[in-house]
Amino acid sequence: LSQFVLKIWRFLQKAWSLGANDPRKVVHCLKVGTALSVVSLFFYMRPLYESVGKNAMWAVMTVVVVFEHTVGATISKSFNRVCGTILAGFLGLGVNWVADKSGEKFEPWIIGSSLFLLASAATFSRFIPSVKARFDYGAMIFILTFSLVSVSGYRVEELFALAHERLSTIAIGTSLCIIVSMLVCPIWAGTELHNLIVRNMDKLSCSLEGCVIEYFDGSAEGGKSEPIKNLQGYKCVLTSKATEETMANFARWEPAHGHFNFRHPWQQYLKVGASLRSCAYCVEALYGCICSETQAPESIKSHLASTCLRVSSQSSNVVKELAKVIKATSKSSTIDSVVGEMDDAVKDLQSCLADLPKLLLPLPTPEVSGLEKAERSAASLATTPLLDMVPLVTSASLLIEITGR
Amino acid sequence: LSQFVLKIWRFLQKAWSLGANDPRKVVHCLKVGTALSVVSLFFYMRPLYESVGKNAMWAVMTVVVVFEHTVGATISKSFNRVCGTILAGFLGLGVNWVADKSGEKFEPWIIGSSLFLLASAATFSRFIPSVKARFDYGAMIFILTFSLVSVSGYRVEELFALAHERLSTIAIGTSLCIIVSMLVCPIWAGTELHNLIVRNMDKLSCSLEGCVIEYFDGSAEGGKSEPIKNLQGYKCVLTSKATEETMANFARWEPAHGHFNFRHPWQQYLKVGASLRSCAYCVEALYGCICSETQAPESIKSHLASTCLRVSSQSSNVVKELAKVIKATSKSSTIDSVVGEMDDAVKDLQSCLADLPKLLLPLPTPEVSGLEKAERSAASLATTPLLDMVPLVTSASLLIEITGR
Repeated sequence: LSQFVLKIWRFLQKAWSLGANDPRKVVHCLKVGTALSVVSLFFYMRPLYESVGKNAMWAVMTVVVVFEHTVGATISKSFNRVCGTILAGFLGLGVNWVADKSGEKFEPWIIGSSLFLLASAATFSRFIPSVKARFDYGAMIFILTFSLVSVSGYRVEELFALAHERLSTIAIGTSLCIIVSMLVCPIWAGTELHNLIVRNMDKLSCSLEGCVIEYFDGSAEGGKSEPIKNLQGYKCVLTSKATEETMANFARWEPAHGHFNFRHPWQQYLKVGASLRSCAYCVEALYGCICSETQAPESIKSHLASTCLRVSSQSSNVVKELAKVIKATSKSSTIDSVVGEMDDAVKDLQSCLADLPKLLLPLPTPEVSGLEKAERSAASLATTPLLDMVPLVTSASLLIEITGR
Repeated sequence: LSQFVLKIWRFLQKAWSLGANDPRKVVHCLKVGTALSVVSLFFYMRPLYESVGKNAMWAVMTVVVVFEHTVGATISKSFNRVCGTILAGFLGLGVNWVADKSGEKFEPWIIGSSLFLLASAATFSRFIPSVKARFDYGAMIFILTFSLVSVSGYRVEELFALAHERLSTIAIGTSLCIIVSMLVCPIWAGTELHNLIVRNMDKLSCSLEGCVIEYFDGSAEGGKSEPIKNLQGYKCVLTSKATEETMANFARWEPAHGHFNFRHPWQQYLKVGASLRSCAYCVEALYGCICSETQAPESIKSHLASTCLRVSSQSSNVVKELAKVIKATSKSSTIDSVVGEMDDAVKDLQSCLADLPKLLLPLPTPEVSGLEKAERSAASLATTPLLDMVPLVTSASLLIEITGR
């Protein structure tokens, strides 16, 4: 039993730290509670209750289902819910009318087969990537409403009244959700995406610089585990693709907020994210060098150290500068000069590498050269990704200038 | 207008090819249609209709919401729906009973505050990663049911009858879904995960071998764009993390099927997937070498070519062998010898690299050596990842032996 209590206690601790780390999550929960309480007031206020009747249930359902963490997600789900309901409602009315006119005998067949066909078609549409990304929920609501309408067994005239009531309750629910999510501590998917990209850039530049420093100054083995942890910031960049795509999808539904317009080019963020991911792959290769067992002799390390450190600090400066540019969504005058400095550092490194073979000539013993080679392979492995990164970073900077307009 | 028609036509073509490429998706759609038609029969069969009354609507809703592509997802959603409904139903009844006893004045306050608190708490629980992965839908259903029960304004006795009817309709809906999804062309999440991993291994081994061959035989520039496309199979491996995790989550709900038991170690698949992803990062670095502008002089390429090709073909053989082992979920006797061959090839490559500096000594002109260095860096960049891959592949093989039992 004590084990069970301990488990629960640990679970609660984890939950508490989750809330303490991101108070906005707690705020979101309170928002959901508020929205639900407000909508349940409809049941207690007689005049309102009598005008929508039993259908007030649908307002509650709408609030529970539609309220999401970000404003964009809420709007997108509301839009999907309303459109799916309207479309399916009209189609259902039409089918019921046709079935009604065609006589008792055909009625169940017409309704049954149309239900089968439309449900299958709508389910299939959910597999199409472009539909899935944006209208997945709408397609589900379409099937739901259509089947409810077609099996309800009401007359067409009754259905009109029902449709009117249900639509108005859903409208109440969605507008309440949108208002609460936009006015009370709004969490914009666009801002989240923006911050995610900036944060990823910062992490990447830290990892990049840290990895190279760690490689050349790795002799101080003392507090190794701690800095290594810091270096692994790039791992977040590797796995953030799905989050970025969802955010970008929701962000396009959001109205203008902060310094983002309605038609902010969110797709550009995805491209920047992809460039960042390519850079992160390079850092992953760099990181492999640090952990590799074949380490370099000090002589060669020191020959390359200064230029390598310069290249890495320059390129991480470029990334940091780009992060600043994105953060401010404005063009920066210094970016060109920083990129220029990085290019110079890269050229120095290239000439340094060209000098290496001469440096190695005076070493005669063959058993040393094996080690040497391993070192050189490690060192050049460390530098080639740096060279690789230059075009990537440059392309990213171009993209960002587009974004910054 | 013709543009619009063209757009629709292209959309339909895309949808058609989607269906033609994966007929199981079409089958799934027909399954949904069938399940919905069957459940709507309840409305036409008088005795059944009278026993559940208006609540038959909930059976339809359950089918629409719960029916998913894979068996595991359907079972997990059904479980969530039933548990969420039962838990929230009992809690709602309890709260209503307490509110009922405490008199007219306190009733709305007790109900309102309990709704606010429980909705907030349940929403917060959806942020906890372990809950989100498995009980996200259940938490939503919990909020939904609890708020519907607490605002319905029924007496407690009426609520019991209502709860009974609603639970039985939901049970009908979920069991229908589970039966249809398991009996009619079932799509098991476990099998999907299994196939995904095997497919990714095959792609990775092809890319690995292809990249090295391309690097050393890259002189035949003719039909370059086509093979390059084949080499990019590893890109799928890079981005399949989210899919693997969802699949593994659903797979654990599935009963024994094929040669998978109920408690098949699905988590091992995630570890294998992670190893594959690390290998794919190495292949990404290799691929960077092919596209790099600083290419090697033929003399050095030919010196390393044979051993490098051997290492790459051996390691891709290991991966292919592992894929076979996983496919058959049985231990393979040949795997040890294949790994041994790979280790030998790696040792040869290491000694080959040790010989390189000697080979380079007779080349005197400094302007050549710059090029040389660039080549060597490229060549060693190409080989170091290969060396890196060995422990990864070995660890993967260990994991797979666990999986294969």
